Amino acid sequence: MTAAANVEREQHLLAAAFLSRVAEPASVPLWMFVEEHGYRAAAAAVRAGDVPAEVAACTEARRSAADPEADLSAADRNGIRLLTPADADWPHFAFAALRATGQRRVAQWRVGARARPQRGELIPPLALWVRGNAPLAAVGPRSVAVVGSRAATAYGEHIASEFSYGLAQRDVVVVSGGAYGIDAAAHRGALAAGGCSVLVSAGGLDRPYPSGHRHLYDQTAEQGLLVSERPPGSAPHRQRFLSRNRLIAALGAATLVVEAAHRSGALNSAGYARDLGRPVLAVPGPVTSAMSAGCHRLIQREEEPASLVTSVAEVLSYCGSADLVDGPGGAPLPGGSAPVRRSYDSLDAVARSVLDGFPGRGHSVTEAELSRLSGQPISKVIAALPVLQGAGLITVAREGYRLASVAS
Amino acid sequence: MTAAANVEREQHLLAAAFLSRVAEPASVPLWMFVEEHGYRAAAAAVRAGDVPAEVAACTEARRSAADPEADLSAADRNGIRLLTPADADWPHFAFAALRATGQRRVAQWRVGARARPQRGELIPPLALWVRGNAPLAAVGPRSVAVVGSRAATAYGEHIASEFSYGLAQRDVVVVSGGAYGIDAAAHRGALAAGGCSVLVSAGGLDRPYPSGHRHLYDQTAEQGLLVSERPPGSAPHRQRFLSRNRLIAALGAATLVVEAAHRSGALNSAGYARDLGRPVLAVPGPVTSAMSAGCHRLIQREEEPASLVTSVAEVLSYCGSADLVDGPGGAPLPGGSAPVRRSYDSLDAVARSVLDGFPGRGHSVTEAELSRLSGQPISKVIAALPVLQGAGLITVAREGYRLASVAS
Repeated sequence: MTAAANVEREQHLLAAAFLSRVAEPASVPLWMFVEEHGYRAAAAAVRAGDVPAEVAACTEARRSAADPEADLSAADRNGIRLLTPADADWPHFAFAALRATGQRRVAQWRVGARARPQRGELIPPLALWVRGNAPLAAVGPRSVAVVGSRAATAYGEHIASEFSYGLAQRDVVVVSGGAYGIDAAAHRGALAAGGCSVLVSAGGLDRPYPSGHRHLYDQTAEQGLLVSERPPGSAPHRQRFLSRNRLIAALGAATLVVEAAHRSGALNSAGYARDLGRPVLAVPGPVTSAMSAGCHRLIQREEEPASLVTSVAEVLSYCGSADLVDGPGGAPLPGGSAPVRRSYDSLDAVARSVLDGFPGRGHSVTEAELSRLSGQPISKVIAALPVLQGAGLITVAREGYRLASVAS
Repeated sequence: MTAAANVEREQHLLAAAFLSRVAEPASVPLWMFVEEHGYRAAAAAVRAGDVPAEVAACTEARRSAADPEADLSAADRNGIRLLTPADADWPHFAFAALRATGQRRVAQWRVGARARPQRGELIPPLALWVRGNAPLAAVGPRSVAVVGSRAATAYGEHIASEFSYGLAQRDVVVVSGGAYGIDAAAHRGALAAGGCSVLVSAGGLDRPYPSGHRHLYDQTAEQGLLVSERPPGSAPHRQRFLSRNRLIAALGAATLVVEAAHRSGALNSAGYARDLGRPVLAVPGPVTSAMSAGCHRLIQREEEPASLVTSVAEVLSYCGSADLVDGPGGAPLPGGSAPVRRSYDSLDAVARSVLDGFPGRGHSVTEAELSRLSGQPISKVIAALPVLQGAGLITVAREGYRLASVAS
């Protein structure tokens, strides 16, 4: 890297760190402002207070005190690095659906078809603080978000741990939060299998929450990855858990609800997954257990019911493609192998039609363009893309997707 | 009743008792022969050996030894009576779907569209031996077949008992077999609530099977009803359990599977219910329990999946009509009240269309005619009829259904 490129990168990171500090996660006005002006110009304008009223409303309180140099130093001291969409390690694939959903909702608002999107919407993060050894880009179609109650039963913890162990054994990345109960059992299962898990935290990564989970955080960073939208030192506020849940849903190719009471936060994650067009899976349990009531309700939904799953093999059939179930591995992981290439014939009708919608090789397209080109609704396009990527037929480009180059 | 009518009735009962003894249950050739010639002529021809080869094949072994007078005497000594379609107490309503399915399959065979129907088909019984105080005709749209494994877990027995208790409290008749496990728990729950249960046995009603269930048989006869297709003294052969299962499915407006392993006989009952167009409901359980694996498989079916149910209220919503859930009772039971009359507006589109298909008052129609008149497939017609009867809009006629007379 040249000296000029280094300076460029440092300025970009400072801007991203500033933007990450100045507003709460999932702030739609700030995201739209950054989309329009880029990171450095947007950060400078926010710092100067030279922004539209709706951006000022979500940045004014912290714009003077924000100290991105200090945040980056604190991160560095704690082994934490900052990722932005400019990094090769950015999970474009996982966030493509967030981006498409955010753009669609903003477009609907602009034509008056819905209320102005505000906080907590399904938009991609501006930047992510990460700690650990696994590449975040590895979280592709071969990942499962495992969610559930903090007040889990022994049954729920057993299932979370066993299923995550089985998934990790087959090179599937387990994504979860850092709470007691299902979250912790999921990470422990994946790590025990020598696999990779991604722990998405609502607060700064130097502040494990709950504090009793410092060891779980350290272990996860060793084999997998810690991820947060908030800079070091941030407390895990309630609202940050909700915006954090959208990242868990987006990072999982499917979301598995292991145990959830009627009003569990896990149902919130399941709702995000549904909105992103991702499969929602639920584990049944005794009807006498309040901790399984939310899972049963999800399976009983009239619209977009969750799929009842009883085994690791059944969960695997929802991660990208079924013929990966006992295959040699999906998205490249540390020590993993390349995606399995599937033939066109093995695709379902929707996936074929989306694939047929791609322009010639070398041209990239967005989800919205693919929807127009294939004639499939955007939700179907979003659901088909992981299948096509898992099959090695398409790859993620900076501005969308393109056909994969043919292996010789 | 006049002396001539008495003699007539006695001859009819002797013929029915003879036919019930001479062939195994659900013999299609014998059923077709009786449909064509009537009970007395058919019985005389069988006794004389003057029958087509396929009827001879299923009656030859027992036609000389069969002793209907002795069977009727043994029944009388044991408090057992014989019912035929000529009785006011015959459950025409419950068996209408069996009749329609049997007729359809025979018709398909005659035009070469399927193999010749043989034993074990979905045809109505020729006669039923019953013991107990409840009228069998009361088993209408307000009944649930509760089925499951003999080797049930404590969880399964608890659910079978609790659900049956709750159903019986709301005047729903519980229908089940007489085995250990789920069957026994279902009867005990219904009887504990002071309700009515129907125990369908594979052997003679004077031979409780298992023999440890003599007290359960007696208790059920006290408050509900024992039912068998086989005359007194018959042993419960394996094949008789399979044909018995079709009666359990037919007598339940819905079939609830509480616990079932992968190859449980309860799945056979569920399959019959599905073939009859009746809702199949399944209770989930721990995925670690082999006894819930069959229930989960039913819910996961791609075609006609079972509905996951977690409470009595959810089960009630499948018995006839949802607004009976906390209503004053459905089909008249001992001490029960009259069906609730629902307005046309509260019916769904299919039920309305079936109702619209009825000819003027006083004319009765078969399921097949209704299918043609309403333009609805026969399976939809069969499913809609219990709803219309539960709503008090139609009644069962000897040869089908007719519009109910308007209450003044």
